[in-house]
Amino acid sequence: ERTRTMVAYARNYCPNVEFSAEDATRSNPEFLYRVFETAIKAGATVINVPDTVGYTTPDEYFELIRKIRENVPNIDQVILSVHCHNDLGMAVANTLAALRAGVSQLECTINGIGERAGNAALEEIVMAIMTRKQNFDVELRVDTAQLYRSSKLLSNITGVVVQPNKAIVGANAFAHEAGIHQHGVLADRSTYEIMTPESIGLNKNTMVLGKHSGRHAFEEHLKTLGYHLDQEELDAAFAKFKMLADKKKSVQDADLEVLVSQKAVEIPAVYQLDRFVINTGNTITATASVRLRRGNGEEELIEKVSIGDGPVYAAFKAIEKIVGVSFVLEDYKVRSVTEGQDALGEAYVKIRRNGKIFTGKGVSTDIFEASV
Amino acid sequence: ERTRTMVAYARNYCPNVEFSAEDATRSNPEFLYRVFETAIKAGATVINVPDTVGYTTPDEYFELIRKIRENVPNIDQVILSVHCHNDLGMAVANTLAALRAGVSQLECTINGIGERAGNAALEEIVMAIMTRKQNFDVELRVDTAQLYRSSKLLSNITGVVVQPNKAIVGANAFAHEAGIHQHGVLADRSTYEIMTPESIGLNKNTMVLGKHSGRHAFEEHLKTLGYHLDQEELDAAFAKFKMLADKKKSVQDADLEVLVSQKAVEIPAVYQLDRFVINTGNTITATASVRLRRGNGEEELIEKVSIGDGPVYAAFKAIEKIVGVSFVLEDYKVRSVTEGQDALGEAYVKIRRNGKIFTGKGVSTDIFEASV
Repeated sequence: ERTRTMVAYARNYCPNVEFSAEDATRSNPEFLYRVFETAIKAGATVINVPDTVGYTTPDEYFELIRKIRENVPNIDQVILSVHCHNDLGMAVANTLAALRAGVSQLECTINGIGERAGNAALEEIVMAIMTRKQNFDVELRVDTAQLYRSSKLLSNITGVVVQPNKAIVGANAFAHEAGIHQHGVLADRSTYEIMTPESIGLNKNTMVLGKHSGRHAFEEHLKTLGYHLDQEELDAAFAKFKMLADKKKSVQDADLEVLVSQKAVEIPAVYQLDRFVINTGNTITATASVRLRRGNGEEELIEKVSIGDGPVYAAFKAIEKIVGVSFVLEDYKVRSVTEGQDALGEAYVKIRRNGKIFTGKGVSTDIFEASV
Repeated sequence: ERTRTMVAYARNYCPNVEFSAEDATRSNPEFLYRVFETAIKAGATVINVPDTVGYTTPDEYFELIRKIRENVPNIDQVILSVHCHNDLGMAVANTLAALRAGVSQLECTINGIGERAGNAALEEIVMAIMTRKQNFDVELRVDTAQLYRSSKLLSNITGVVVQPNKAIVGANAFAHEAGIHQHGVLADRSTYEIMTPESIGLNKNTMVLGKHSGRHAFEEHLKTLGYHLDQEELDAAFAKFKMLADKKKSVQDADLEVLVSQKAVEIPAVYQLDRFVINTGNTITATASVRLRRGNGEEELIEKVSIGDGPVYAAFKAIEKIVGVSFVLEDYKVRSVTEGQDALGEAYVKIRRNGKIFTGKGVSTDIFEASV
């Protein structure tokens, strides 16, 4: 049948072939056993049993994996893998149930992103295994202290936020609100903390840098946060830090992370913002004049003014006039990254042009500067 | 012992007494059985077995509940309840495992909010039971078509966002991205949809209202969205709608929901925004002049101007001057509610004063108008 031909064909080209039976959890088990047996005979090296639509429950999934191991005679020749979706909120529990049932490959994603309600969250699986070691006969080689940073990095790149009550990496995951809980944690952290913030790389102690901090302190501090920059990057970051420190009384870890992480998503810019002025109010029409610098060598300056229904719209329309292309503003978000009135603002812009989606991000103490 | 005295004392005052054994999942089971037996003898009507720190796994929790039912002789006289936290991402799966083990009260929260990583999410539990009816011997009397709206309402009140990849109520929960999935859904929705968007009250078809829509069409449309306003509320909403329709080409369901849901969180205002003008840019210092109207009868107008590092800060400082109190800006978020450059903006402001936290929210096509 088709499984044999396709797997054999793939095996001619790659040493590793993963065979995945889409929607396995809603399929006839007897049929699944036969398909898997055939795929393994044809050369598959990984057999994946996905819960494609997030339909199964931990007990069912445990049983399914157990029966596959019992009823597919050649299953021990391959790596058995699972891939869970979170449509009913059970992706992590299902993945861990499969682990107990003997699979050796867990497919998951950082922050649980993925199709629809997403896939099983890597950070939750890892910390569950770490926290409940005696339940899982497995050894992990994951540096858990990178989990928090990885989550942040992914959010920065994709613009997909993590809700505050998300397990492990949510802003509140280690925050104790109720008085009785705070009392308990102060007396003995293990009362309410089954894992420490430090274990996921969350550094709660904010060693603060100010405008008088030198380059060496700055570099050392970045290192403790896990950032290793080359000389040029360090110069650029330090210059940004100095400008920021002039505006803000104290620069915190969250500020630094924003400054440094920007670099991860930077693309060479065709236009650079030279200057802008915005006038707005509820009794006047918003106007924006924007001057952009084009190119690197020629240094052409172009300035346009535009009105709009709202300041951001006015600024975008002025930019449209300069750039000469029009686009649809798909999504616009501004959030404060740090606390206080002199906080850093982060603007996330998603625009659509000819069906393509572009995203951009900027950071400044001025939300407009950030947006534009 | 103490359990007996406390429960008996409570029972003197209330007909229903829920006895909860904090951190039950990490306690000695034999001790738990004895405590529960005592509490029931003393008059407890509900026995709660919480997973206080989100530590357990579905199989363990199932076993614990089963053993409690076996080893506490008088357990059948009370309602058995569970309360799960999501620290390892398994709150929903644990709750459902307990349901299969025979508990009859499931404690959960909308959007899964709660201490730290939150509690088991009501919408996920409900839809899991509905979708997998044959697994759970239970009848629910939940109107699932209210789930989406309830989630939105809670987010509006608390300002706690739901991540796009959140199960059931996340923005992407019913979005199919991969081409092969889109193809499958078009051919037959059950291919990738184990539940329909309509089942949770998510109305994808956007019957659009415009500036020429009459009061009757407006009222009828709100009714289909589930909003029943009295005459006065309807008048106010219609006036807002007309103003909005003048600015926007088409008014969508999401716009209407924002207009109407504002009412749920309105508190009588001491000050009202009369007018404001903001000047900002990257080569000038941001200035804001704000005029507020104070009180209802006297109609006192107060105007102040202030500079600030960023336009929002300037406006807030001007307001501080008028109101005469200073506060710390704790969190500031702006997001577009709907698509397009004429989208509605929603500003969420969290300020702190003397250790108390206040939150505010505004909606406008001008993000400043919304913020202020």
